[in-house]
Amino acid sequence: MQVVPDFSVSPSQALLAGPDVRLDQLDPASKPGFDGGKQAGQARLAAGREALSGLQEKLFAESRFGSEISVLLILQAMDTAGKGGIVRHVVGAVDPQGVHHHAFKSPTAAEKRHHFLWRIRKELPGPGMIGVFDRSHYEDVLIARVRKLAAPPVIEERYEEIREFEAGLVSSGTHVIKVMLHLSKEEQKKRLSKRLERKDKHWKYSPGDLEERALWDEYQRAYQTAIERTSSPDAPWFVVPADRKWYARIAVQQLLIDVLTGMQLSWPKATFDVAAEKARLAAS
Amino acid sequence: MQVVPDFSVSPSQALLAGPDVRLDQLDPASKPGFDGGKQAGQARLAAGREALSGLQEKLFAESRFGSEISVLLILQAMDTAGKGGIVRHVVGAVDPQGVHHHAFKSPTAAEKRHHFLWRIRKELPGPGMIGVFDRSHYEDVLIARVRKLAAPPVIEERYEEIREFEAGLVSSGTHVIKVMLHLSKEEQKKRLSKRLERKDKHWKYSPGDLEERALWDEYQRAYQTAIERTSSPDAPWFVVPADRKWYARIAVQQLLIDVLTGMQLSWPKATFDVAAEKARLAAS
Repeated sequence: MQVVPDFSVSPSQALLAGPDVRLDQLDPASKPGFDGGKQAGQARLAAGREALSGLQEKLFAESRFGSEISVLLILQAMDTAGKGGIVRHVVGAVDPQGVHHHAFKSPTAAEKRHHFLWRIRKELPGPGMIGVFDRSHYEDVLIARVRKLAAPPVIEERYEEIREFEAGLVSSGTHVIKVMLHLSKEEQKKRLSKRLERKDKHWKYSPGDLEERALWDEYQRAYQTAIERTSSPDAPWFVVPADRKWYARIAVQQLLIDVLTGMQLSWPKATFDVAAEKARLAAS
Repeated sequence: MQVVPDFSVSPSQALLAGPDVRLDQLDPASKPGFDGGKQAGQARLAAGREALSGLQEKLFAESRFGSEISVLLILQAMDTAGKGGIVRHVVGAVDPQGVHHHAFKSPTAAEKRHHFLWRIRKELPGPGMIGVFDRSHYEDVLIARVRKLAAPPVIEERYEEIREFEAGLVSSGTHVIKVMLHLSKEEQKKRLSKRLERKDKHWKYSPGDLEERALWDEYQRAYQTAIERTSSPDAPWFVVPADRKWYARIAVQQLLIDVLTGMQLSWPKATFDVAAEKARLAAS
């Protein structure tokens, strides 16, 4: 039997970012809690796929018997940080029946006429589901702040609104995991360069990416503030170093596994008389 | 290099069910077009996962550059026929970003007040997406017919409405694949029995399953009629023998691969000046 490399410290502890977070002191190339290298990481990812898939099935099964709990994974990051890879390689291990994925783009005209949380509420995961947000309501305090899409007092108010919104989610049974993929500016340059080199990657590139890149420091400050103001014990932020894709993937995978494990899920007990049903089936 | 077992006749041809289909003459334990056994099938499934995943990425990429095409896979079957397994093992190979899965349950009170296609339209795949319907508007001519949930003339009208609805979908760029997983009554008995034997499967069983099973022949006739009336060259039905799970999976996988291959997808060409962007990036 092969031994699967494991974390020495769980990402749930090692990557937890509280109100005292200092983003500029966290190394995007580090791999907190994991001693192995890329190969060990890939073995970890493969083993974690099975674990995650099994846990999700129980979450789903319980919901069929009245449980209302669900999970919401929020992914935020600068371009090329690897949100898409997390979705493909981590979330992709889960039965598509049990996943509700939504990518939030720039708000439409109709969405802009509503409160910024309106479009978010419509995409929340139902009971038994794992919701995955590729970008989220945090854009309304990130790009909105950097690009001055709303007045400063409005932005200030939003942190409080987000805290209340998420507290409401948590109290109604949704476990919220907020992930910032923490990329270095140098690594982004390499990844954008790759997109320009490869014809099968051109579709992922937009000249606007460089305008966002030019505002790198402003974005880091906006992330710093967002995490300070909205990290809470019930809806915590995790800053996941993302310069090594393999590390970011196993870290987010483990965050999901830890949350699901903490739910102490079990197979629902039969609400029918098993022996009687066996007899009915035999006669059918 | 290992040779991956392939179909001798594509399921797109071998399983096509036109208006002259005779369900009772199709063997649920057969494996049309595939000469190998279970092991060969598993190798086929693994190879097909990569192919499908690659094709889907191109479909998705094209949609980011204005293409409006999409795919809709409709899965219909008796209980235990393996819809869930198809979703997990075939659709599960695709990036969750590119899949819109929806399981249609008994209509809610609100849904019942609307036209039967109302709730269906809300779940159609957007551009670049692969939509997967676990049950669909066909329930409105299947269970509705067998259980007499609507008057016969209403049901009669629905076939025509479905044809027009699907023709509209096709003309607006959605490729429709309709699959009936064709299970034998004996095999269903085995599978239900397994659900009763295993505690981790109890949640999938409901005493109501036996009431549906008692109406087996009526359902077969309803399927027969539905396929007769709604199979068209543009929105074809495929009857997929489902007594062997592995065969049903590779068959549906191949149906998807064939449709996507037929679209002649390609990586979108850059709409920007690649050399100029490289220079901008280098200076950033």
